Amino acid sequence: MSAPAYEHIRLEIKDGVAVITFDAPKFRNALGIRAMQDVVDCFDRVEADDAVGCIVLTGSGDAWSAGFQLKEIQGADDKTSERVRLHFRKASLWWHTILHRLVRAPKPVLSAVNGLCVGGPVGMVAASDMAVCTESARFVCAWHAIGIANDAGSSYIFAKVLGWRRAMDLLLTNRTLDAKTAYEWQLVNQVYKDDEFKAKWWELARSLADGPTHLQALAKQSLHEGWTESLEKCTENEIQNVLKSVAHPHFRPRLKAFLGGAKMNTEAVTIPPSRWRAS
Amino acid sequence: MSAPAYEHIRLEIKDGVAVITFDAPKFRNALGIRAMQDVVDCFDRVEADDAVGCIVLTGSGDAWSAGFQLKEIQGADDKTSERVRLHFRKASLWWHTILHRLVRAPKPVLSAVNGLCVGGPVGMVAASDMAVCTESARFVCAWHAIGIANDAGSSYIFAKVLGWRRAMDLLLTNRTLDAKTAYEWQLVNQVYKDDEFKAKWWELARSLADGPTHLQALAKQSLHEGWTESLEKCTENEIQNVLKSVAHPHFRPRLKAFLGGAKMNTEAVTIPPSRWRAS
Amino acid sequence: MSAPAYEHIRLEIKDGVAVITFDAPKFRNALGIRAMQDVVDCFDRVEADDAVGCIVLTGSGDAWSAGFQLKEIQGADDKTSERVRLHFRKASLWWHTILHRLVRAPKPVLSAVNGLCVGGPVGMVAASDMAVCTESARFVCAWHAIGIANDAGSSYIFAKVLGWRRAMDLLLTNRTLDAKTAYEWQLVNQVYKDDEFKAKWWELARSLADGPTHLQALAKQSLHEGWTESLEKCTENEIQNVLKSVAHPHFRPRLKAFLGGAKMNTEAVTIPPSRWRAS
Repeated sequence: MSAPAYEHIRLEIKDGVAVITFDAPKFRNALGIRAMQDVVDCFDRVEADDAVGCIVLTGSGDAWSAGFQLKEIQGADDKTSERVRLHFRKASLWWHTILHRLVRAPKPVLSAVNGLCVGGPVGMVAASDMAVCTESARFVCAWHAIGIANDAGSSYIFAKVLGWRRAMDLLLTNRTLDAKTAYEWQLVNQVYKDDEFKAKWWELARSLADGPTHLQALAKQSLHEGWTESLEKCTENEIQNVLKSVAHPHFRPRLKAFLGGAKMNTEAVTIPPSRWRAS
Repeated sequence: MSAPAYEHIRLEIKDGVAVITFDAPKFRNALGIRAMQDVVDCFDRVEADDAVGCIVLTGSGDAWSAGFQLKEIQGADDKTSERVRLHFRKASLWWHTILHRLVRAPKPVLSAVNGLCVGGPVGMVAASDMAVCTESARFVCAWHAIGIANDAGSSYIFAKVLGWRRAMDLLLTNRTLDAKTAYEWQLVNQVYKDDEFKAKWWELARSLADGPTHLQALAKQSLHEGWTESLEKCTENEIQNVLKSVAHPHFRPRLKAFLGGAKMNTEAVTIPPSRWRAS
Repeated sequence: MSAPAYEHIRLEIKDGVAVITFDAPKFRNALGIRAMQDVVDCFDRVEADDAVGCIVLTGSGDAWSAGFQLKEIQGADDKTSERVRLHFRKASLWWHTILHRLVRAPKPVLSAVNGLCVGGPVGMVAASDMAVCTESARFVCAWHAIGIANDAGSSYIFAKVLGWRRAMDLLLTNRTLDAKTAYEWQLVNQVYKDDEFKAKWWELARSLADGPTHLQALAKQSLHEGWTESLEKCTENEIQNVLKSVAHPHFRPRLKAFLGGAKMNTEAVTIPPSRWRAS
């Protein structure tokens, strides 16, 4: 599969990791309609690629993404607001399509936030399965500053990830989160020093890619479904997932290894990721 | 609108902030049926008042509220318990009416907890959109100490705000939370020193009042709805909210300002609250 | 009731506390089908025993439980996987029966984790109403290491207890949690030093046992139901619970005590647990 010619994003696949880079530094990587469509195209490609075990979202330059491309909006000076309304409807739909792809992708999605993150992209970071950032990253919801309602899945994912109090705080006060606060609020799993950032997220992405993709997909799906299900429904779903997993070719060699002498101590159980795929 | 003559509460409106003060220091601001009805009356008034952008709940003296007015209960010595039962049914219904008003109010609600908070009022603090307290504040569920089941919305809001483990801990052990622990457990967003308390919560209340009320209302509503909805349902609701917001007169001047040169950096995006209403 | 003859677990009841001990040190307390059935039998007994006010789960030796008994699996070398599949179906069902009993038990359940905890038992700890551990405890999900999907209620309880980010992290990376991290992630309520562990959890268990069992049962039930219900449904349920509690013989003496002079201050409200049952 040859690399497609995208304009404001880049897609690179290496060692099981697919890296989607927002690449419009002139606009601090704000995403226009075309760029959003291209991100969706990337997901089509990498989901279908069995060699890909982890999907990373990152940005070029000193921004992750400054939100959506406001310059594209036509009719801001127009007396009638229909063109503006249509633009926001279209932009929201594409935005939400990306959110759905992040959450429903049957592979781990990692946001590697290299700098400024504004508006809808904060929803993307929150909806990613894991997220890390540099010390210089900043997160701003911004919706209320430009007069629009919170979207980008914030009503689904903010309270889950940040906790109820902080989700409400973030939306009602429109405060800026620095990297340290983003970590305390669990918007990101880790903060790395700027000069170590690339090496560190790559290491994590490689580790996720080495994990058992089919089981990671079930884990994601089960957590999202389990949020609103009863214990009884959750466990019945889990049994179905267990039966799928023991029927998978991945399972038998692992069981044999354990029965053949793997000791039940912490070290033995935590098989190094590099060995998970060695079947 | 002239200030109504309430007996055990006070209502003051100033600079966009409506302050409801529990004011029965003799009973440490425990709320009787009449006081609860008056709180509901306050919500009727301030929700309808376009000049109000934030609702604050606080107490006079050294207590926020010591719960419901146990002295009102008739028939404690009665062999038959029907009068006691009716009283609790009535008190619970009023209590829960207040909870609904807090949660459903289309404006930010801030609890400014100046001291002791016992029983149902702990539910009110948790259900407020934001909460702050003094260093000397104390929180006690107390339900189990007097032999009644947890109410005041605790089954709805405690796990959301405190997290699952701590919600269960608080209810099962009936422990007292000091201010520091209340902050760690996210029952409050901030703790302020006693002598700075009034000035600090007023500043926060003013900032919330200066925010875009119609968008804050959508934010509140979307978080409460989003807790139990699928991602797909959440994003469809969000699109509807976005379309409402771009049709609002508040929106157009902000969009023009951005297109006219506002830079997409952290500082520009974080418009000072004092400018949000300047349309 | 004479103590039943279990093989790999022990049941002891003393001072209102029922202690179920996983006791197969040779297998680091991994639970086979028979042991799981015996745990369920324990729940039958202690739920029906009015003298029991708290149920504790702990392990003998240096492990809490190393998961399920892999050695029992027949047919690992078999070309056909039907026997393996049936074993997992059976094991999962028993495992989940235990989970249901933990969550639905009308009494507080405390996991006292004395050491290594692997796989399904991590789900048991998370689903317990409270959990404590020693400094030397370790928690490992392990599912992905042996190639099976996460079960044991993890899709129901992990996000609630650990928070969304950390639940996802734990499942996707299969990382080992030491005691300190388990506390930070709220998997456990407290960490105790190894040499104080037994005395400390016993003190907590006694305190829970001294609490008002019927109200603790309503608290548990209301939190589990409340997670996915609207505020309005929650408060209606709460009113029904309040009416049940004021009709309970436990209530009247407490109300009289308060009306007879108990002061509404923090100290008076926090009645020592030892007095809660003194009716």
